[in-house]
Amino acid sequence: MRDVSIVGLGQTPVGEHWDTSLRELGFRALEAALKDARAERVEALYVGNMLSGHLTGQEHIAALIADFAGLRGIEAIKIEAACASGAAALRVGYAMVAGGLADIVAVVGVEKMTDQSPETVTAALSMGVDADYEAMQGLTHMGVGAMLMRRYMHEHGFKREDFANFAINAHANAVGNPNAMYRSPISVRLFNEAKPIADPISMFDSAPAADGAACVILAPTEIAREFNDKPVRIRASAVATDTVAAHDRRDPLYLEAAAISAQKAFATAGLGPDDIDLLETHDAFTILSALSLEACGFAARGGGVRLAQNGEIGLRGRIPITTMGGLKARGNPVGAAGLYQIVEVAQQMRGDAGVNQVVNARLGMAQNIGGTGGTVVTTILERL
Amino acid sequence: MRDVSIVGLGQTPVGEHWDTSLRELGFRALEAALKDARAERVEALYVGNMLSGHLTGQEHIAALIADFAGLRGIEAIKIEAACASGAAALRVGYAMVAGGLADIVAVVGVEKMTDQSPETVTAALSMGVDADYEAMQGLTHMGVGAMLMRRYMHEHGFKREDFANFAINAHANAVGNPNAMYRSPISVRLFNEAKPIADPISMFDSAPAADGAACVILAPTEIAREFNDKPVRIRASAVATDTVAAHDRRDPLYLEAAAISAQKAFATAGLGPDDIDLLETHDAFTILSALSLEACGFAARGGGVRLAQNGEIGLRGRIPITTMGGLKARGNPVGAAGLYQIVEVAQQMRGDAGVNQVVNARLGMAQNIGGTGGTVVTTILERL
Repeated sequence: MRDVSIVGLGQTPVGEHWDTSLRELGFRALEAALKDARAERVEALYVGNMLSGHLTGQEHIAALIADFAGLRGIEAIKIEAACASGAAALRVGYAMVAGGLADIVAVVGVEKMTDQSPETVTAALSMGVDADYEAMQGLTHMGVGAMLMRRYMHEHGFKREDFANFAINAHANAVGNPNAMYRSPISVRLFNEAKPIADPISMFDSAPAADGAACVILAPTEIAREFNDKPVRIRASAVATDTVAAHDRRDPLYLEAAAISAQKAFATAGLGPDDIDLLETHDAFTILSALSLEACGFAARGGGVRLAQNGEIGLRGRIPITTMGGLKARGNPVGAAGLYQIVEVAQQMRGDAGVNQVVNARLGMAQNIGGTGGTVVTTILERL
Repeated sequence: MRDVSIVGLGQTPVGEHWDTSLRELGFRALEAALKDARAERVEALYVGNMLSGHLTGQEHIAALIADFAGLRGIEAIKIEAACASGAAALRVGYAMVAGGLADIVAVVGVEKMTDQSPETVTAALSMGVDADYEAMQGLTHMGVGAMLMRRYMHEHGFKREDFANFAINAHANAVGNPNAMYRSPISVRLFNEAKPIADPISMFDSAPAADGAACVILAPTEIAREFNDKPVRIRASAVATDTVAAHDRRDPLYLEAAAISAQKAFATAGLGPDDIDLLETHDAFTILSALSLEACGFAARGGGVRLAQNGEIGLRGRIPITTMGGLKARGNPVGAAGLYQIVEVAQQMRGDAGVNQVVNARLGMAQNIGGTGGTVVTTILERL
């Protein structure tokens, strides 16, 4: 297998792009990434997306975006793994280059959600939980998240307020990210006074639906500097799965797919949690950041929230997370979220994270969670 | 890159499985293929599916099927490329094994359509055409097919009746396929008297929506005989794309993605049309078989229909097509169709096609078409 690096980064601002179509969003991210890679073409395109069929009546979007981007004819395939679609697409693109099936490929994550009503989006997102055994009973994606958070509070003796710093940290970091949706800091008081959406999840525990697209260009590391002076090496890309229905898991508070994919990624890279300089958690809900930190070995069971409380998740903390705002404040265009994470970790590895730069960051990790843990993709990037 | 072979085949009967869930269908095909490969586990699962979100409210189905099949924890990813989802999933699975990222993987194609009304299914299938520039104007997938057929008749001087043998051949072959949906021969008179659905497409030009799942197990060729006494080698797997909207193409009657993917596959395998013993065409509409035969070089422009008229597409003809009934008579569970084609070509390569066996078949090809040609996947299999 060949060593693979990221040689181009592109993203659109995350927000409500009512005047921009799905294909246009995908194209803009791809165009920016190609420019960053000083490339005009790629051999293949892999697109991570969850909801285009349900929300815009359009499947078949990989071919659509390839054509719209002037790449008519190339191999183009869409990848879907609920909210983990973005990083799952990266996994496929990585495999194509690592395995020698292609040299230069693009991976785009794209989602367009805000043209639809919140009710429609809530129903659409619930296609990521078990349709027969969860959604059919009236349980939404948010509802499962709320039950996990309530159970965690019960098991480990936390109150809702103890999760505040996950959201405060994300919003603080989004201020320095020009592509973030909510570039406004929030206070403890604001967090504590927020009304519940699905108790105990409030508006500030939950990431906003959004529109956006992010893209990376991949190439073999041995030719990476032909494209970019600051290539970022993919040390590992690992996918694992679990039951889609949370109630079927041995322990709902232990995300096995997160643990397995992290262990696979660490084993591939010959690394462990202590080597990682920053972690992009999938903070669709604050509870998911806590569970991810614990499943990956950055904290003991029940210790994820404590890391946040102690300020160890900040840019200068022991394990900085959501360094560019996370899903919470950068915004969560679901099928694109995993690619935004990758772009942001790569920015950190390049030293291009501006005021949000984690000093001396050399190894960064991202964990993209599908549904409430049914699919988890872990990626480790390294500064070259 | 490693040489890859198919070491296990599985399929459910194609039909109306009202009492069987999507995950159960996927599991049954996977279980049969694992048994055929004398294997208990695979390292990864790739699932081709187009419509589960829209028709059953369930995305995230790769993780769902992996768990339901007792494979909890493995890498599992869904692949979508409209009606070409099945063979696109094969392409990803092939790449994983060829590139050395995995040794033993399963590729499942699954679709469940018949619980929904025909109107709902027609709307769902139209997510494979251009939502903004075709579907928004009231044009369905079937409508685009009808315009292509009408244009072909005009350009090349054919009548509707001239397409009859595509359907008659498919139905004749389905009689010998125990998994086919319509195991009934049809006559010229029946074809000619069929009422139009989207003029000039009649019921017998158009493949039926169906439920079903098909699966192949892949392994490196060098260890293939550990799993199966009759491995089938994948000589090539190639994806190409075109505009999704048919009116944007340079020539709507020339399927460029079919031509490019066939050329890529032929080049990879060092073969040409004359070497191919049988071809599974994507006969969602009879016109697509004609266009596929022409784009791949089996016939000159306008010659595809003539091949059918002259009986050269039969099991003992010059280029047998739809040898187990095709989409038309085996049935068309769209996201699974590409995998059914692969399973059927593999059956032919093994000499396991029963009364439908193409004598001395050594090289077989399948062409899986997404939308009306926006994505085309060409696969070439070889008897070992």
